[in-house]
Amino acid sequence: MDESATPKAGGEIYDPRAPGMMPFHTALPAFRDGSDTPSAYLERCIAVIEAREGEIKAFVNTNLEGARAAAAADKRYRDGRPASPLDGMPLVVKDVIDTEDMPTEHGSPMFAGRRPEWDAACIYWLRKGGAVITGKTVTAEFATRPPGPTRNPWDTERTPGGSSSGSGAAVGAGMAPVGLGTQVRGSVLRPASYCGTYAIKPSYGVITLNGLLTTSRSINHLGALAASLEDAWLTLHWTSRMAGGEINHAPLAGKTRMPAPARPGRLIRLETVGWQQTSDAVKALFEDFLEKLAGEGIEIIGRNEDPEVDRIERMFADTNEISSALSTWEGRYPMLAWAERGAEHFSEMALKGLDEKRDMDPDAYVQALQRAQGMRQAFAALAGKGDACIALTADGPAPQGMNTGDVAFCDPFSLLHVPALTLPIFSFDGLPLGLQLIGFAGQDTRLVAEAAWIRDFALD
Amino acid sequence: MDESATPKAGGEIYDPRAPGMMPFHTALPAFRDGSDTPSAYLERCIAVIEAREGEIKAFVNTNLEGARAAAAADKRYRDGRPASPLDGMPLVVKDVIDTEDMPTEHGSPMFAGRRPEWDAACIYWLRKGGAVITGKTVTAEFATRPPGPTRNPWDTERTPGGSSSGSGAAVGAGMAPVGLGTQVRGSVLRPASYCGTYAIKPSYGVITLNGLLTTSRSINHLGALAASLEDAWLTLHWTSRMAGGEINHAPLAGKTRMPAPARPGRLIRLETVGWQQTSDAVKALFEDFLEKLAGEGIEIIGRNEDPEVDRIERMFADTNEISSALSTWEGRYPMLAWAERGAEHFSEMALKGLDEKRDMDPDAYVQALQRAQGMRQAFAALAGKGDACIALTADGPAPQGMNTGDVAFCDPFSLLHVPALTLPIFSFDGLPLGLQLIGFAGQDTRLVAEAAWIRDFALD
Repeated sequence: MDESATPKAGGEIYDPRAPGMMPFHTALPAFRDGSDTPSAYLERCIAVIEAREGEIKAFVNTNLEGARAAAAADKRYRDGRPASPLDGMPLVVKDVIDTEDMPTEHGSPMFAGRRPEWDAACIYWLRKGGAVITGKTVTAEFATRPPGPTRNPWDTERTPGGSSSGSGAAVGAGMAPVGLGTQVRGSVLRPASYCGTYAIKPSYGVITLNGLLTTSRSINHLGALAASLEDAWLTLHWTSRMAGGEINHAPLAGKTRMPAPARPGRLIRLETVGWQQTSDAVKALFEDFLEKLAGEGIEIIGRNEDPEVDRIERMFADTNEISSALSTWEGRYPMLAWAERGAEHFSEMALKGLDEKRDMDPDAYVQALQRAQGMRQAFAALAGKGDACIALTADGPAPQGMNTGDVAFCDPFSLLHVPALTLPIFSFDGLPLGLQLIGFAGQDTRLVAEAAWIRDFALD
Repeated sequence: MDESATPKAGGEIYDPRAPGMMPFHTALPAFRDGSDTPSAYLERCIAVIEAREGEIKAFVNTNLEGARAAAAADKRYRDGRPASPLDGMPLVVKDVIDTEDMPTEHGSPMFAGRRPEWDAACIYWLRKGGAVITGKTVTAEFATRPPGPTRNPWDTERTPGGSSSGSGAAVGAGMAPVGLGTQVRGSVLRPASYCGTYAIKPSYGVITLNGLLTTSRSINHLGALAASLEDAWLTLHWTSRMAGGEINHAPLAGKTRMPAPARPGRLIRLETVGWQQTSDAVKALFEDFLEKLAGEGIEIIGRNEDPEVDRIERMFADTNEISSALSTWEGRYPMLAWAERGAEHFSEMALKGLDEKRDMDPDAYVQALQRAQGMRQAFAALAGKGDACIALTADGPAPQGMNTGDVAFCDPFSLLHVPALTLPIFSFDGLPLGLQLIGFAGQDTRLVAEAAWIRDFALD
């Protein structure tokens, strides 16, 4: 923890060892023995919302009375029959995910008050498991770049990151143990890093996006930002098993429980193209941690030790071009249709992308698909070289102002379809910063087990 | 042509050489030289609708005035600037595909009057190309089995097939040159066979299903039933290039034009599990045609000539089990949510499937995905043995009554994700029956070229 922080607005000094809220999973024993209840847990969350929402602006809509009514879990725990490991869990939901009881507005005035007829598939099953939705959280316009009004809970002069801005800020502030987000490039892990939360973006396709705004669907992932690794994992795993995956994709394997921490033997250190824009002081934080891991006997290899890793690092230079091409084509519908009817509601930034969408050659899309597939195959070959990859989640803590920050540390792993997660173990200048762990496609459980070990080691 | 037909209600004797309507593509030269116009073509379609809709019941909703207003193509042809090869083409649309100007009711009273806010992606781009939507056509409930009221235009005591019942009947009766349908098992090719239309179900994924009812999405295809092979191909190709494919799938390759007829060198004759339920008389029709092809020097091989083909034929016995498992899992959402709110609107048949959906183990789905993948790989190995496969499209003409008929001749090729099409070249008992041609994944253009040659040979 860094005590020499620069002046900050609103928030406290970030201390990764002193979490702002009790993770939901740690309350389960108390729910079972009756010394705590989901209703009381919910009220503690609501108290934080009431105290801090005015300055943080995490929400587009809340439904606190609905949440209180839905909190029927107390009795189920008393009876020893919770509906799921999430029964009674307060949940906040990025406002690109359809909900029956609250509008879903996609971060755009074009959809102000839009009331979906049906819950999205993930929401349907989360409610079946007893999750209690307290509110819809701010998203950047159409889940892309143009920011909403949300402030970083650790310094309200800074961005919470995007596009899952409100979910990051709400969980970071302790308003809910879990927030749903979506990530096409870095929209789950980056706000988690900036707001001091855990987050998991699972392997591509393990949770259906039915009922979500799904531009860029070939690289779009449902993820969870959470007060603990356990809360994120249990939420995603349960949802995956119940709602199923994207078309032709399997859900996550196995039973819904947190895997036991597993010590990795060898980690592949990745710089990504973000490294060159990272300050020496931030680099040192990362390097120091790698040294500590090495001191524990964990082997660390990187581009200097292995030419194959270097080849992958150089490959990341193509990420932006390929991801942009995929997003441009996949956003033709519905973006062009929406703009025809409501261009006056589009930001300048959103309008600017429309011509490129309209004029795109389908064969350029096919080429981007093929290049993405080539990158995925090349990355899969790294699996033999290490248990997981390790990197920063962002080039530093949340920047000043409302620009949602840079995606370079996260977007290769969205394009690659591999599981990635962030642990909020660093404090820099009194602000949170995440450590990113990246696994191989389909090996989500193994990655989470190794992440649990690294978290325990880091916070011990 | 069979002159000794059994008594029929309503329709005429089916003669594949005397089409009931002028295909749209054959009218294009007359549109260009001004001797015909899209408006006049539309009026001829409307005249048939007005004459026969009362007995056939192909439509759930029509919007003839809207279609007339949208028919602004006359001037564009005169100016030599049609918007697409489909400019001014009347189109009917299966009522599981969202349209802004007409309700979309999914064949269920639960959705009576449901008015989508946006056109489906395919509809958005078809309208951009100048297609003129005259009506929404009857679908079996939720695009599965329970039939709607539609009658076969060649004998109103018989089913038009399903689930794209209304599109088949409307095109077969000459109400429109093209109807959109969807096929999970046999729902495009079977009604086409029963109603005497051409139809193409392209390779899986070449057209996005955004804005469609998409249960069974991993084996669901948008297809076209049409008055000619050209009309079907141009409609699908143009839509694929503009609307794009399903997630992570390329659109059809190349420019939108009909490929030149190409004589196949060798065809693989497939029986499917439908063969054993087919009458000797129908079998003879197929065998006679194969003999004629052989007389032209086209080599025909089948299970008796090649053990690998026999292995594939035996593999088809698994199709029903695998397709059912995929549909069961992929229908959990939204079917369970819909039934919770409106079970009283469900047919008994639809209700019966719900428990199985609710109780399904996700790992059984994963296993079905893997078995489907294994079948696809095995089938791909046939590509070296012949240019295309040839089979019947159904076990005979449309059966008496409203049961929509058997899928056995079609459903392997939906599960296999390969292109398949039907040519309405047979008349049996005065009723139409299709010849099916099946290609290999991604080789749609080649299949259509060979089909054009076979059609020309058959109808010459």
